[in-house]
Amino acid sequence: MQELNEKEQLQLEVEQLIQALEDENIDTFRTLFLEIHPYERAKFYSKLSSDARMHLYRFLSPTEMAEVFENLEIEENEYEDFLSEMDPTFVADMLSQMYADDAVDVLNELNKDQVASYLTIMDDEAAGEIKQLLHYEEYTAGSIMTTEYVAIHSNQTVKSAMYILKREAPQAETIYYVYVIDEEKHLAGVISLRDLIVTDDDTMVSEIMGDRVVSVSVSEDQEEVARKMKDYNLLAVPVIDFQNHLLGIITVDDIIDVMDEEASDDYSKLAGISDVDSVDKSPISAAKKRLPWLVILLFLGMLNASLIGHFEGTLEKVAILAVFIPLIGGMSGNTGTQALAVVVRGIATGDFEDENKFLLLMREAVTGAINGLICGILVIGVVFIWKGDFFLGLLVGISIFVTLIVATLAGAFVPLIMHKLKVDPAVASGPFITTINDLISIIIYFGLASLFMSYLIH
Amino acid sequence: MQELNEKEQLQLEVEQLIQALEDENIDTFRTLFLEIHPYERAKFYSKLSSDARMHLYRFLSPTEMAEVFENLEIEENEYEDFLSEMDPTFVADMLSQMYADDAVDVLNELNKDQVASYLTIMDDEAAGEIKQLLHYEEYTAGSIMTTEYVAIHSNQTVKSAMYILKREAPQAETIYYVYVIDEEKHLAGVISLRDLIVTDDDTMVSEIMGDRVVSVSVSEDQEEVARKMKDYNLLAVPVIDFQNHLLGIITVDDIIDVMDEEASDDYSKLAGISDVDSVDKSPISAAKKRLPWLVILLFLGMLNASLIGHFEGTLEKVAILAVFIPLIGGMSGNTGTQALAVVVRGIATGDFEDENKFLLLMREAVTGAINGLICGILVIGVVFIWKGDFFLGLLVGISIFVTLIVATLAGAFVPLIMHKLKVDPAVASGPFITTINDLISIIIYFGLASLFMSYLIH
Repeated sequence: MQELNEKEQLQLEVEQLIQALEDENIDTFRTLFLEIHPYERAKFYSKLSSDARMHLYRFLSPTEMAEVFENLEIEENEYEDFLSEMDPTFVADMLSQMYADDAVDVLNELNKDQVASYLTIMDDEAAGEIKQLLHYEEYTAGSIMTTEYVAIHSNQTVKSAMYILKREAPQAETIYYVYVIDEEKHLAGVISLRDLIVTDDDTMVSEIMGDRVVSVSVSEDQEEVARKMKDYNLLAVPVIDFQNHLLGIITVDDIIDVMDEEASDDYSKLAGISDVDSVDKSPISAAKKRLPWLVILLFLGMLNASLIGHFEGTLEKVAILAVFIPLIGGMSGNTGTQALAVVVRGIATGDFEDENKFLLLMREAVTGAINGLICGILVIGVVFIWKGDFFLGLLVGISIFVTLIVATLAGAFVPLIMHKLKVDPAVASGPFITTINDLISIIIYFGLASLFMSYLIH
Repeated sequence: MQELNEKEQLQLEVEQLIQALEDENIDTFRTLFLEIHPYERAKFYSKLSSDARMHLYRFLSPTEMAEVFENLEIEENEYEDFLSEMDPTFVADMLSQMYADDAVDVLNELNKDQVASYLTIMDDEAAGEIKQLLHYEEYTAGSIMTTEYVAIHSNQTVKSAMYILKREAPQAETIYYVYVIDEEKHLAGVISLRDLIVTDDDTMVSEIMGDRVVSVSVSEDQEEVARKMKDYNLLAVPVIDFQNHLLGIITVDDIIDVMDEEASDDYSKLAGISDVDSVDKSPISAAKKRLPWLVILLFLGMLNASLIGHFEGTLEKVAILAVFIPLIGGMSGNTGTQALAVVVRGIATGDFEDENKFLLLMREAVTGAINGLICGILVIGVVFIWKGDFFLGLLVGISIFVTLIVATLAGAFVPLIMHKLKVDPAVASGPFITTINDLISIIIYFGLASLFMSYLIH
C-alpha cells in the first residue's frame, strides 16, 4: 500500500509539473520541482520532450540545472543533444557549478571542440580543476575522483578544524572525512567527522587523526578502488600520486555506480552481447548490439561444420554417431562456461592474486576429470540401456570424460592467458568458449570414433 | 612502488603479530593489532590456525573481538567452528557488542539451539534487539537493517539535536543522518549531519528537516533497497513498517555487500554454477558446485540425442545433414543466452516495470528475425560456395532464420514467466536456455529437412 501511494503521488506531481511547464506557470513549477528529490528531478527532466525542456531551462538557474545533471542517467549520445538546447554560457555556468567529477563525466561525452569552447567561457577556477581531471585515463581512480574535499593541517585544534569544515561544507562532495595534509600537500592523516564532533574543542588534530590512511593511487583501476572501499567500509577514499600528494577523493556513491557498471559489463560479456544494460528502444538497436558476436560465432560454427565434414565418410557408415554430437558439444560448452566464470570472477575479485597459476589449472583439470568421470559413467549406462550397444556407450562416455577435462582446462586457461596479456579476461565470453569447446569436442569424439570404428560397425 | 611498500609493510606486521602470539607477548601483540585497520585484523584472524586463535582470544576483549567479527569474511560453515573455540559467555558478550545486523548475520549461520543458548546468557537489551531482527525473512530489508540509529524530535533545537547526536555516536552505526520521529515513533523527517553542523544552534529541527523521506518497507527485497540507495545517492535509508513506524536503518556498506552478492549470484546462474564466488580449495568442492547443473544438462542433452535418433533414417540417407547440427544448435543457444541476459538484467534493474510484456516479446521476436535474416543469408552464401549445393544452403539458412526467431523468443519468454511466477528469473541459467534451444533447433532443422528431402538426395 505504502509503495503504491508513494508512486501515485509521484505520478500526480509529474503531471502537475508538466501542466505548469505548459502554462508557463513559473512559480508553481519551481515550488513543486525544487521540492522533489534531485533524482526525481533528473528523471523528470530526462523524460521531457525537447520542447518542454526548452521551457524548463528558462525556469531554472544554472546551479539548479547542475543538480539535475549530477543525477542524470541518459544514454551517452544524448548529452550532446541536451546541451545543444541550452545557451552556451548557461551550460558553462552549469558545468562550473557541478561537482568536478560529474562535470568531467558530461564533458567526456562531447567532442574536443565542444569541450574546449565550454572550458573557454567557464570561470577560470572551475575550468582549471576540470582540465586537470580530464587528463586521467578512463577507468582509473583519477577519472572518477573529485577535487572538492576538505583538508586541514595537523597542528590545528579540533575547533579550528570544525570551523574550516563548516566553511567548506557547501562546496565539498563529502565532509564526513577530513584529510590532514602537510605544507607540501602530502597526505598525512584522516579524521572522520564522527571523531571530530565527539572530541573536545581544544584537542589537537594530530592527537586524534589516523595516520595509517587507506588510499588509492591515481592510476589504479576503478574496480580495484571499489574493492578497497568495500573491504575497508569507506565512505570516501583519498587519491594520491606516487609521491603521496593528495590529488582528490572518490566518494562511495561513485563507487556504487562503478560496481554496477563492472558487474553488468562482466555479465554482458559472459552472455556474448556488447551492452546488456542500456534499454533497447527498437529491435534494430538490440540487433546491432548482438549481431557482432553472432556473426563471429557463425563463422566459428562454420569451421566446426567443416571439421565434421571431414568425417562425412565415417558418418555415412555409422549414422548413429551424429545423434551424440550435440550432447558432447553441449556438455563441453557448459563445463567450459563454468570454468570460465569461476576464473573470470576470481581474477576480478583478486582471489587468485597470490596463487600459483599452474596449480590453479591443475585443480581445474582434476575438477573436469571428476565431473567427466561421473557424467561419463552415467552416459555409458544410459546409452547401453537405450541402444543396447556397449561399445557405442563406451565411445560416448569416454568422449565425455576426455572433453570435460579438456573443456574445463580451456575455460580456465583462456581468461588466465588474457589476464597475463593485460586483456580484460571477461572478453572471452561464454558463447566464445562454448563454440571453441564445440570444436575441441568434435575432434575428440570423431578421433575416438575412428579408433573404435571396427567395434561400431555391426 | 607505493602499493608494494604498503603490501610489504602489512606482510611484515603479520609476521610480527604471529611471532608475538607464539611468544605470548601480549603487549606487543595488542599494540600492533589494534593499530591496523579492522579489516586487516579480521583478515589476519581468519587466516590463523586454530591453536593460534586460542591464544588470540586471551589477548583481546569481547568488544575488540566484536570489531573483528564485524569485518570477518569466512565461509558460512566456519562460524560454528570459530565460535566453539571461545567461552560461551565471551561469545555472548562479543555478540552484544556487535552492531545488531552483524550479530544477526553471525547467528544466522548457527543452529537454533546454539542461537537460543547465546541469547539466554546475553544482556537483555542486546538479546531483545537481536531477537527482533532474527524474525525477518532472508533477503528482505528487515534482514539487513540495524536498530542502532539516531532519532530526534522535530520540536528540538539544532543544539539539543547535536547534543543527542554526540551522546549516541558511540553506539550508532551511522550518525550522518539523523531521523526525526513523533511520539508514536512515526518517521516524520530526516536531517543530514551536514545540514546540522552548518545551521545555527537555535534553529528548530522542524525548520530544516526534509519531510519527504526516501524510505523502504521492512519486507522489501534487498535488491530493491540497493537500487533505491543507488538512485537517490543515500548513505543510509530508514526502514519502516506499513504504518510508517521507524524500525531501523540500512547503511551503504551493507548495500555494497548486497550488490556484490546479487551481481555474483546473477553471474553464477548465467554460467550454470551454484556459487562462483567462494574460492575452491579443492577440486572436490569445485566439482560439487558444478556437477548438479552438468547432470541436469546431461539428461536434457540425452533427450536431444533421442530426438535426433528419430531422424537416424534421414541421416543415413543424407549424412551431410549432421555436419550442420552443432552450427544451428550453437547459434540458437547463443542468441537465446543473449535475450535471456537482456531480460534478466532488465528485470533486475526495474527497466521493464512499466513496459507491456507482450510488446517486449514482439520486440525480441523482431530482433531475432533481423539477426536471423542476416545470419541466414550469410549461411546460404557460405554453404553454396563451400558445398556447391544451393538447396542444402537454403535449408541451413532458413533453419538459422527460424531458430534465431524462436530461440530469441524463448530466451526472453522463460525469465519473464519465471518473474511472473515469483521465481528468481536468473535461475533460468545460460546453459539451461542453451540446451532447451538446442532441442528446439533440432526439431526445426530436421522438420525442414524432411520437407526438403527430395531436393537433398542427389
